[in-house]
Amino acid sequence: MTANRRQVSLNLNVRGMNQSATLAIKERVRALRREGRHVHDLGLGQSPFPVPGPIVEALRLAAPEKDYQPVMGLPALREAVSEFHRRKDGIDRDPQDVLVGPGSKELMFLLQIAFYGEILLPTPCWVSYLPQARIIGRRISLIHASYESEWKITAEQLRHSLEMVNDATRPRVLVLNYPSNPVGNTYSEDELREIAEVAREFGIIILSDEIYGQLHFTGGHVSIAHYYPEGTIQSSGLSKWCGAGGWRLGTFTFPPDLRWLRDAMAAVASETFTSVSAPIQHAAVQAFHCGAEIERYLHHVRRILAALGLRCAAMLREARVRVVQPEGAFYLFPDFSPHSDALASRGVTDGGSMCEKLLEDAGVAAIPGVSFGRSRGELTARLAYVDFDGAAALAASEMIPLDQDLPRDFLDKHCRNVLEGVAKMCEWATTPAKSVAAPARPAARKAPTQIGSARRIQ
Amino acid sequence: MTANRRQVSLNLNVRGMNQSATLAIKERVRALRREGRHVHDLGLGQSPFPVPGPIVEALRLAAPEKDYQPVMGLPALREAVSEFHRRKDGIDRDPQDVLVGPGSKELMFLLQIAFYGEILLPTPCWVSYLPQARIIGRRISLIHASYESEWKITAEQLRHSLEMVNDATRPRVLVLNYPSNPVGNTYSEDELREIAEVAREFGIIILSDEIYGQLHFTGGHVSIAHYYPEGTIQSSGLSKWCGAGGWRLGTFTFPPDLRWLRDAMAAVASETFTSVSAPIQHAAVQAFHCGAEIERYLHHVRRILAALGLRCAAMLREARVRVVQPEGAFYLFPDFSPHSDALASRGVTDGGSMCEKLLEDAGVAAIPGVSFGRSRGELTARLAYVDFDGAAALAASEMIPLDQDLPRDFLDKHCRNVLEGVAKMCEWATTPAKSVAAPARPAARKAPTQIGSARRIQ
Repeated sequence: MTANRRQVSLNLNVRGMNQSATLAIKERVRALRREGRHVHDLGLGQSPFPVPGPIVEALRLAAPEKDYQPVMGLPALREAVSEFHRRKDGIDRDPQDVLVGPGSKELMFLLQIAFYGEILLPTPCWVSYLPQARIIGRRISLIHASYESEWKITAEQLRHSLEMVNDATRPRVLVLNYPSNPVGNTYSEDELREIAEVAREFGIIILSDEIYGQLHFTGGHVSIAHYYPEGTIQSSGLSKWCGAGGWRLGTFTFPPDLRWLRDAMAAVASETFTSVSAPIQHAAVQAFHCGAEIERYLHHVRRILAALGLRCAAMLREARVRVVQPEGAFYLFPDFSPHSDALASRGVTDGGSMCEKLLEDAGVAAIPGVSFGRSRGELTARLAYVDFDGAAALAASEMIPLDQDLPRDFLDKHCRNVLEGVAKMCEWATTPAKSVAAPARPAARKAPTQIGSARRIQ
Repeated sequence: MTANRRQVSLNLNVRGMNQSATLAIKERVRALRREGRHVHDLGLGQSPFPVPGPIVEALRLAAPEKDYQPVMGLPALREAVSEFHRRKDGIDRDPQDVLVGPGSKELMFLLQIAFYGEILLPTPCWVSYLPQARIIGRRISLIHASYESEWKITAEQLRHSLEMVNDATRPRVLVLNYPSNPVGNTYSEDELREIAEVAREFGIIILSDEIYGQLHFTGGHVSIAHYYPEGTIQSSGLSKWCGAGGWRLGTFTFPPDLRWLRDAMAAVASETFTSVSAPIQHAAVQAFHCGAEIERYLHHVRRILAALGLRCAAMLREARVRVVQPEGAFYLFPDFSPHSDALASRGVTDGGSMCEKLLEDAGVAAIPGVSFGRSRGELTARLAYVDFDGAAALAASEMIPLDQDLPRDFLDKHCRNVLEGVAKMCEWATTPAKSVAAPARPAARKAPTQIGSARRIQ
C-alpha cells in the first residue's frame, strides 16, 4: 500500500489559489525591504495612523477578559454599534440586529456561506469578494463600472443587469462599498436614492460596506440605509477609521426583515470563529462610542488624507493618467491607458505586468485592476497612499488648528515616501523605452517630478 | 413585482441549523440566571482559571499593536509554537510549518474547506466537527467507540473501518482528540503507537487535537506525532491550558509532507479571517514560551482539576452511573443507562430529554451525547466540571506546597457548585417518578448527596 500523505488532495475550488492580493503584496514588500531595497509601498490598504489613545487604553484595561463571548457579540458592544449608526447615519437599529465578527471580511464570507442566491458585485471591487465566492462555489455576477461613470454603477445599469435575467424574483445581494476601495470616491445622495429604488423594486438585499464611512474627507458620509432601511445591511469595523486593521473586528447591522439571515450567519459563526476576541470587543465598545477625543482624531486624519489624496490625484492627472477625484478612504485607482502605446513598447500590455515592472523598475508597489474584478488587459491599478508615519503626521497636524488648511510643506515633510512613489510612477509611465524609438505621441512627455512643489490642490 | 427581502433564501446546508450546542447552553444558562434561578453550569467547557499574569501583562504591553499580521501568524509566535512542541512533545517542527488562527475550531473549518477527502471521526467527539462538515457539505465517517473501550477507538477498529471501504488509497483525515473532550481520558502510548501504525499503512493524515495536552493531570501528555511524525498535524491553542478561550487563538503545526495543505489553508485564511488579532498574537508569544511562572500555574491547575474530576467520577459511580476515570481536561461523559428504566418511567427516553429535564428539575446544565456524535437514544451527557471561581481556587492552591495533596475540604470549599450539581444529578437520576410506581430495580436507590463528605477519592 502506498501512503498518500504526500499526494495532494485539495478542494478544486481552493487548489492553485494564492494568498489575497493585498496581503501577498504586503509580504512581498517586506521581503524586498529585508533585501535592502527602497520601496514605496502603495500596496496594502492599511491605515497609517495609530489607534486612538482611549481605545488602546480600553484594550489594556480589558486584557484580563478571558471568557468566550456570546456568538453575536458582547451586548455592550452591540449596543454601542447600534448607537453609532443612530448617531452617525441616523439609522435606528436594535442592538439585537448587530453581529460582530473577526473582520467584516469574515462576515462577508459567512454571508456567502449562509445566503442562497446571487451576489451582485460592481467592479472595480474590493479584492476578497470574488475569491470567497470561488472558495464556496457561489455564483457572482459582476456589474462593470467605467472610468466615465467614475467607476460607479448607475441605477439604470443595475436595473438593466437585473432585467437581463428572466428571473425577476431571484434572491440577490448587491454589495455596495463607499467611500470606495479601490477608487476612493463615493456615491452621492441622489445616486444612492436611485439605486435604493431599483433595489426595493426587485427586492434585492444590499450589503452596504461602509468600513470607510468615517473617512469621508468632509465627514459627510451618507448611508444607503437611509433610503432603503428595510433591505440594507450596514457593514462597519475598526480596521480603517480606527486604525486597528490588525485587531480584527468588523460588524454587520441588519434590518428586522433580514433576521433569518442574521440568525443563519450566527449559527455558522458558532461553528467557526465562535466569537471575537473578548479584550478586543471590550476595547471596541470605547471605539464605537467615539467621544470628543476620537472625533478630534478623525478630523485630523481626514484633513491629512484629503490633502494627500487630492495632491496625488493631481500629480497623476498632470502626467495624463486618468484618475477620479478622491472623496474618502485612502485609495486612488489610476488608469494608465492614455500611455498604453508607450507602455506596450516596453512590453507592458496588461495591469499585472505593469505593476510587476513598476515594482521592479521604480520600487513602487501597487495592485493591478484585475485583482479588483477588472479585465486582465486593463491598465488600471490601485494605489493606497498610506506609506508614511501616521503617528508623526497626526502629532504634527495636532499642532495646527482644525479650522486651518495644512501648511504648504506639510505633505512634503510627512508623506514624502508616498509623493515620491507617485512621482516615480508618473515618471515611469511616461518614459519611453530606452531600446525602442520613443513614440511620437505626447505620452512620452516626462511628468513633473518635483515632490517639493507644494501647490494645494482641490 | 414582490419584494423577496422577507423571503428566506438560505443554503440548505445551513438552514435550520442552531448555534453550537456548547455555546447555546451557555446562553441558556445566562438567561436562566438572569431570571434568578440557581444553575449548576456543567455545560460550556471553559477553563475557570484566569489567564496567567505574565500573559495578561504581555497583552497590555501589546495593546498598541495595530498592523495586519502575516496570514500564517506573527513570526515570533510561530517560533514560540515550534519551540513549544519541541520542548513539550519532543517534536521538531519548522516555525514555517505553524499556522495561527482565531481558535483551532476555525482552523479545523479551514481544513475541511481545503482538504478534499473523507474526515474520520471517532465518537464521542467534540461538538463542532460534524456541523462544520454539514455546512461545507463534506463527507464524514464516524467510528463509534463504546463505554467498554473507555470511549476510545482501537487500532483494530480503525483498520476495520478503513478496510470496509473498497478504496484503500482514499484521502482521509483522522481527527484524534486527547485528553478528550467530552470524555476526559486519554490514549496510552501503546494505543497511540498502534493507531499510528495503521495510519501509516493507509497513508492517512492525523489531525491530533491536543488542545488539552497541558491539562493532562500528571503532565504526562504524549503526542501521536511521536509515532507518526510525517503524517500528523498537531493542534494547540490558548483556550484551555491557558484559560484564554475568549481570546481566540489556536495553532496547527504541520509536518513538511503536508505543506500543500498548510498553504491551501493559508490561502483560504487570507480571504476570510486575514490574520489573528495582533495584540493577542503578541501575548501568545509569552504563553507558548511558558516559563517558570506559567509552569507553576499549570501544576496548580492540574492538581485542582485532577482532584475535582476524580471526586465527581466517584460520586457518579457510587450512584451506579457508568463513567470512565478522568485523566485530563475538565470533562466527564457519564452514561445513565443503568437507570434507563427509572428514567423511562419519568418520560426520559433519550439524552436530549434527559438533559432538558435535568436542567428543569435539578438546575443542572449538561450537554447530551447526541451533540457529540452519539445516537439520539443514548443516555449519555457531557459534564464540564468548571463552574467554580478558578481565581479563588488557584489563589488557595498557591498557599499549599505543590508536593502535597489538596486538603480534604478544599473542593467542598472552592468547587461547591460543581459538587452540588453532580450530587443533584445523581439524586435526580436515581429518584423514581412520583406519579409512577417506583421500579423494583435498585435504580431507584437514592444516591448519597452529602457534598460535605470530604472523602479523598482516587
